[in-house]
Amino acid sequence: MTSNFSKQIVINYVDTDAGGVVYHANYLAFMESARSALLRQAGFPASVLRDKFNLVFVVTESNLKFKKPAYLDDELEVSVAVTSMRGASIVCHQQVTRCGEQQSQELQTNELLVDATIRIATITADTFLPCRIPSELRHVFAQFNIHSA
Amino acid sequence: MTSNFSKQIVINYVDTDAGGVVYHANYLAFMESARSALLRQAGFPASVLRDKFNLVFVVTESNLKFKKPAYLDDELEVSVAVTSMRGASIVCHQQVTRCGEQQSQELQTNELLVDATIRIATITADTFLPCRIPSELRHVFAQFNIHSA
Amino acid sequence: MTSNFSKQIVINYVDTDAGGVVYHANYLAFMESARSALLRQAGFPASVLRDKFNLVFVVTESNLKFKKPAYLDDELEVSVAVTSMRGASIVCHQQVTRCGEQQSQELQTNELLVDATIRIATITADTFLPCRIPSELRHVFAQFNIHSA
Amino acid sequence: MTSNFSKQIVINYVDTDAGGVVYHANYLAFMESARSALLRQAGFPASVLRDKFNLVFVVTESNLKFKKPAYLDDELEVSVAVTSMRGASIVCHQQVTRCGEQQSQELQTNELLVDATIRIATITADTFLPCRIPSELRHVFAQFNIHSA
Repeated sequence: MTSNFSKQIVINYVDTDAGGVVYHANYLAFMESARSALLRQAGFPASVLRDKFNLVFVVTESNLKFKKPAYLDDELEVSVAVTSMRGASIVCHQQVTRCGEQQSQELQTNELLVDATIRIATITADTFLPCRIPSELRHVFAQFNIHSA
Repeated sequence: MTSNFSKQIVINYVDTDAGGVVYHANYLAFMESARSALLRQAGFPASVLRDKFNLVFVVTESNLKFKKPAYLDDELEVSVAVTSMRGASIVCHQQVTRCGEQQSQELQTNELLVDATIRIATITADTFLPCRIPSELRHVFAQFNIHSA
Repeated sequence: MTSNFSKQIVINYVDTDAGGVVYHANYLAFMESARSALLRQAGFPASVLRDKFNLVFVVTESNLKFKKPAYLDDELEVSVAVTSMRGASIVCHQQVTRCGEQQSQELQTNELLVDATIRIATITADTFLPCRIPSELRHVFAQFNIHSA
Repeated sequence: MTSNFSKQIVINYVDTDAGGVVYHANYLAFMESARSALLRQAGFPASVLRDKFNLVFVVTESNLKFKKPAYLDDELEVSVAVTSMRGASIVCHQQVTRCGEQQSQELQTNELLVDATIRIATITADTFLPCRIPSELRHVFAQFNIHSA
């Protein structure tokens, strides 16, 4: 059985820009925070991976489609699904959706704001060389793999 | 009766710097997120204050003492107490404490990391001129005022 | 005649993360700063576009390939070339290259670190609706259009 | 003879928030970039201090007065003066001033926006323990010490 993981965040001033909306680069950070929350929940926080597994995840490719803006105080849901897994990399499909009751009544809830494909490689923490994803993590990713049977 | 408000956050890569610790400027953003959470919980999100009360809070002074560093995956608690209130400004005492079970066993829990005094003024959202704190908000702040009798 | 535009930046602690490298989301901000510098040099700073042309640029799509990391004190060059232009959007090809004499002698200079394609739409500043790129700007973009004859 | 050091920066969207002004925490980063530029110009970039001197600067206290807001496209000057030096710490006086010809003609030039006192300690890069400022650096700081005779 597989499932999506998602994390909720709320937009503060620090996330916005003078256009009155969330600054586009910040979505990449929101997506990192969702992936980190998934790993933390699964018992593999980034600091444990680095210190005990000598492993660091690095984003090697990110393709983002920004469909609608998010505003101050919006409640967003950031999802993570693992769509493919190779020896030393995974691909995640991540979406940012507006959820909850919004301040502005003109805004629909459950609107897709950002649709992203993020490729992530595993490297050694000390030498920055590619390294295989450990089997413990493969099991975690399999749970969030929308294509796994 | 008065009480402290606090918000928990978890440290992700985006919050850290090449020194291996949380970048010092980010604590100001953590403190904003705690104040915003307090206002949101009290029914006055920043966007409502701006759109319905024509009111914006601006930080006019911040005095921070950085006592200990925070690390990747640390769980922090950011507190807010209102220590004084005038017609068009308040002063908050805010502390960032490491809490929860930490990844590194060498770190003590409930350590004070940052101790801050933040002065905040209320201005009109449209003209940026000083304006009185509305009575609805004065009641909110009084609840979190550690000096109120 | 056409040409590339580029802007140099130097990496400070704020740009880095606990992995010891530049945090990946920050490259999107570096690319914005290069595009803004191009517009400023051409006489069309973002604030003028907003206030006098009722125009805002929004990133609608970003495809980034992160090839090599950048480190503290690295000098980077961020280039901008306009590869296509439509009525209300442009596509930019942007690259981040390490340049200059580097602190670490193991690092080659003129290494390509990030390769990006950024799609940008023009919307009205007041209503956020799509709007045509004004002819003054079309002339600017044509100068930096690597496919224009 | 002593002198002030200063660095110029230009405000981009990434620096601003939905209030239409520069987000207050970012001034701490601007001040770091000015101090880093001073050290880099003096031949001691942060990465050299860390790798060759086993030395890292950490901000231990920051007192900021935010006097006026900065806006999109503003050109700011960030100054650094060393006002005191002890064995393992210095105190800097830093100011952020609006300079140059501004987009908005209502804004005066050479307005003081932020006035700050920043205390910085020197620690070892490997063990995070306090350590003496090396004499090479003491000479650098003496040049920018507004109280040195």
